[in-house]
Amino acid sequence: MSGFEADAGDADWRPVARTRTYELVIDRVEEQIVTGALKVGDRLPAERDLAKMLGVSRAAVREAFRALEAQGVLRMGVGTGPDSGTTVAALPSQALTRLLRLHVALANFPVADVVRARLMLERESARHAAARARPDDLARLAELLDEMDSPDCDRARFNDLDTEFHVRIAEAGGNRLVADMTIAIRESMRRPLLAAFDALGDDWDPIADELRADHRAIYQALRDGDAEAAEERTAAHIRAFYRHGWAQDDL
Amino acid sequence: MSGFEADAGDADWRPVARTRTYELVIDRVEEQIVTGALKVGDRLPAERDLAKMLGVSRAAVREAFRALEAQGVLRMGVGTGPDSGTTVAALPSQALTRLLRLHVALANFPVADVVRARLMLERESARHAAARARPDDLARLAELLDEMDSPDCDRARFNDLDTEFHVRIAEAGGNRLVADMTIAIRESMRRPLLAAFDALGDDWDPIADELRADHRAIYQALRDGDAEAAEERTAAHIRAFYRHGWAQDDL
Repeated sequence: MSGFEADAGDADWRPVARTRTYELVIDRVEEQIVTGALKVGDRLPAERDLAKMLGVSRAAVREAFRALEAQGVLRMGVGTGPDSGTTVAALPSQALTRLLRLHVALANFPVADVVRARLMLERESARHAAARARPDDLARLAELLDEMDSPDCDRARFNDLDTEFHVRIAEAGGNRLVADMTIAIRESMRRPLLAAFDALGDDWDPIADELRADHRAIYQALRDGDAEAAEERTAAHIRAFYRHGWAQDDL
Repeated sequence: MSGFEADAGDADWRPVARTRTYELVIDRVEEQIVTGALKVGDRLPAERDLAKMLGVSRAAVREAFRALEAQGVLRMGVGTGPDSGTTVAALPSQALTRLLRLHVALANFPVADVVRARLMLERESARHAAARARPDDLARLAELLDEMDSPDCDRARFNDLDTEFHVRIAEAGGNRLVADMTIAIRESMRRPLLAAFDALGDDWDPIADELRADHRAIYQALRDGDAEAAEERTAAHIRAFYRHGWAQDDL
């Protein structure tokens, strides 16, 4: 017998894997969304009606709704007012970030793959941000740089500010989909990066200075609207940091 | 009153939104995964035990498990054998594809943003695929090209083959994370692209010929191991097609 074992004897009487009805309900709902039949804000049929239409139990519909709500696909209203009932939600970016973060944690992608994906995404964002960053984007970036300069800024705080710096640039680039992917990857790196910061011991100080200088140079390129410099400095920054942290020299 | 309305009178007695306990359970499980405390294949505590540890009801734990199972994060075994119990699953790429497809459908990204993300990802993949494609990758690509040449190949079939052609190149590039993102975006475009194909009416034939010629040129660059040509031809192919379909001229 390959892939499974019986506890005793020859026969294996464990129950077969069930096809889970609620997963079929999820498929149906998603299909309606992908075809455009259901749009953000649209109301779904009541549990009882949908159960009848699909020929499944109300419990299956309820479980499907719960699972889709947990993913941010549906919003389940309460009470009887105008916001009650189950509607299609706008699937917040956090849902994508959350899943991509889990994906990176579980799939155990080689660090080099994640770094190359970061390089690709952040180069693209930096180039666009140089052309499109608004004064309030630049003002927030400047604030983050000043906070990272503060002597009170410990490694955990630095990591948070650093994450926000890169996320802000991605958002300033103006391509929401690219920004969402960048944010998801950058967020997925928050913990491993902090672990790397901590592992640096006394080497942290000179490296933090280097990171600060890199950030200032990137910021300057964005202020100058210099797309090429913004892209190159971002790429050099990411490559240099990973060379410190993981001795990747083929990025 | 801003943002909501009462049906009658001044008071608004609709129930407040509940904090959903099962969502808190989901957060806890995900936290264990992201910190690395739970790895693929690890078994979770039994429902009853976890409920006690977290101070929540068994129903909340069960709902959380169901929601995480639907997302491919957990696998719920059946029976009492060694595969029973709830374990951490490897979160298949399809989970990411699925969510990104919903994200594209619901977030209503501008087509130009999606196309720019495709351009960025597929240029990266094409460059790497030129260096790394194996003989079996090239053989499959050649098969797909021949099938797209067949007179029996209708638009729906062409679209499927076309999708697989691009997905195969992404996989041949060797960066699983970049490939997963490429696949998710390409899959999210499957339906809108088919709609665009159908909308072309009699203009389809010359455009299909153009797509076939583009694909052959990309394939040739991959065979030659010419990274620069592979990247450029891929970019030109994607740009040209969208110019036909959506009159985007600023890509």
